[in-house]
Amino acid sequence: MKIIRHPVEMHEFSSALGKSGKTVGLVPTMGALHEGHASLIKTARQNCDVVVTSIFVNPIQFGPTEDFVKYPRPFDKDCGVAEANGCDIVFTPGEREMYPENFSTFVEVENITDSLCGASRPGHFRGVATVVLKFFNIVAPHVAVFGQKDAQQCLVIRRMTRDLNLPVRLVFAPTMREKDGLAMSSRNAYLSSSERRDAALIYKGLSAAENLYRAGERSSAVLCDAIRGIIGASSLLIVEYVEIADMETLASVTTLSTPSLAAVAVRTAASGTRLIDNVVLGGTF
Amino acid sequence: MKIIRHPVEMHEFSSALGKSGKTVGLVPTMGALHEGHASLIKTARQNCDVVVTSIFVNPIQFGPTEDFVKYPRPFDKDCGVAEANGCDIVFTPGEREMYPENFSTFVEVENITDSLCGASRPGHFRGVATVVLKFFNIVAPHVAVFGQKDAQQCLVIRRMTRDLNLPVRLVFAPTMREKDGLAMSSRNAYLSSSERRDAALIYKGLSAAENLYRAGERSSAVLCDAIRGIIGASSLLIVEYVEIADMETLASVTTLSTPSLAAVAVRTAASGTRLIDNVVLGGTF
Repeated sequence: MKIIRHPVEMHEFSSALGKSGKTVGLVPTMGALHEGHASLIKTARQNCDVVVTSIFVNPIQFGPTEDFVKYPRPFDKDCGVAEANGCDIVFTPGEREMYPENFSTFVEVENITDSLCGASRPGHFRGVATVVLKFFNIVAPHVAVFGQKDAQQCLVIRRMTRDLNLPVRLVFAPTMREKDGLAMSSRNAYLSSSERRDAALIYKGLSAAENLYRAGERSSAVLCDAIRGIIGASSLLIVEYVEIADMETLASVTTLSTPSLAAVAVRTAASGTRLIDNVVLGGTF
Repeated sequence: MKIIRHPVEMHEFSSALGKSGKTVGLVPTMGALHEGHASLIKTARQNCDVVVTSIFVNPIQFGPTEDFVKYPRPFDKDCGVAEANGCDIVFTPGEREMYPENFSTFVEVENITDSLCGASRPGHFRGVATVVLKFFNIVAPHVAVFGQKDAQQCLVIRRMTRDLNLPVRLVFAPTMREKDGLAMSSRNAYLSSSERRDAALIYKGLSAAENLYRAGERSSAVLCDAIRGIIGASSLLIVEYVEIADMETLASVTTLSTPSLAAVAVRTAASGTRLIDNVVLGGTF
């Protein structure tokens, strides 16, 4: 497995692959790779000749009070995970190469970034869209793979890709879960043992909503109350939002008639860890 | 010469050219082609195997009180000009293809869009950057050619291209001028005959500043006063701005020490036509 650190080298390498007729798959990550990332890399492996995993903790998608500095960066371990799952190239640029002096260009995806995580993380999706577009331009992938756990991110990137006519096929891979259902996340490492235990209630709530939906329930308020009720059993989890939103626009839904995203964000009371999860009701990504 | 109207067809055509080893040059225009555009097409012709001229009056770069509706659209004549100057493909997409329902992604280039034309045309450069990025993604050009008359546009696109790692080489071609020095512009057609006569004062002012600069003058105030003095001789021209700005940041300059842009915008009193022009002092684009 090759490690590339400079955007120009990455672009030249990837362009040469493209010219030789090989398809390139990109898995953009911030490192701290877990089984969820492994699944994305395997998905890219199945779809492309050459798999590039980018590892870059992107400063412009973190708010000033967020965990940019403490975000885990176990680079050698990450390379091991990437290689074991079929990655050919780890692309890990420096901050200065990605954001040179006087950097001033940003991609704004409007409307669908206003709700859910966008409401409490102003500028987050601007940072995500900008860095993903940069990676697309540097790596020139035929396919890019993202995890459904970051549902709003998936929809923002899908909208950006359509709106900006980006020549890349997007694949959204299912969320990988721990045995008790907790969605895998690099931030799970921040949890205390009691927070970790109660964090399983998030998916338990979402699963309850799925069951109610399958039984015919179409009221967003009823479904959200069910989720809140289950998560609310823990005093260690503070709900940031429980919402049901249209899969296309992310507008809030009152009565479910089209595929809808049931999405949750909680913050843990003690460690202040932010956890998100979601299920799609009546459809898929 | 081929005419392509759909982005997907354009992308497939251009990708096939790229794969066959041909270089593609793009000249993005809003039509109403004059000798300035002809010069851009010829420049692309000299730099590339295949020349694409896009003709699209881009709604999102016009303000609500601007001339989007009355902007000239002489499509058949434009095709004649394009073909006569060596264009291979005119790409002329529809508004609905460029901006489908729920279009919501925009490129913001900050700071250098605040001054000069950006100050009086909020959202203009956002619209320009967005449509140019879309054209880059659709046409996948190796080279793109822009006219130096739209100096701030050139610098915004240069910044965007660097910041977003766009794989395209930019060429900025010199401003073409009428015999009396007036910069060629599609908007010159709006001028009354007396406005047209007085409009020559704009470049006369800029030339006076160039002469003063060559003679050693480095005070921005003195150079701007000279330009204002000459343009002010006409009661038909209302100065919007006369500024000298750093070529890299477009920050206002007090004493010229690095390459600087002397830039002018005027509005004509009767027809309300907005005219811009510029020269670079102590450097080039």
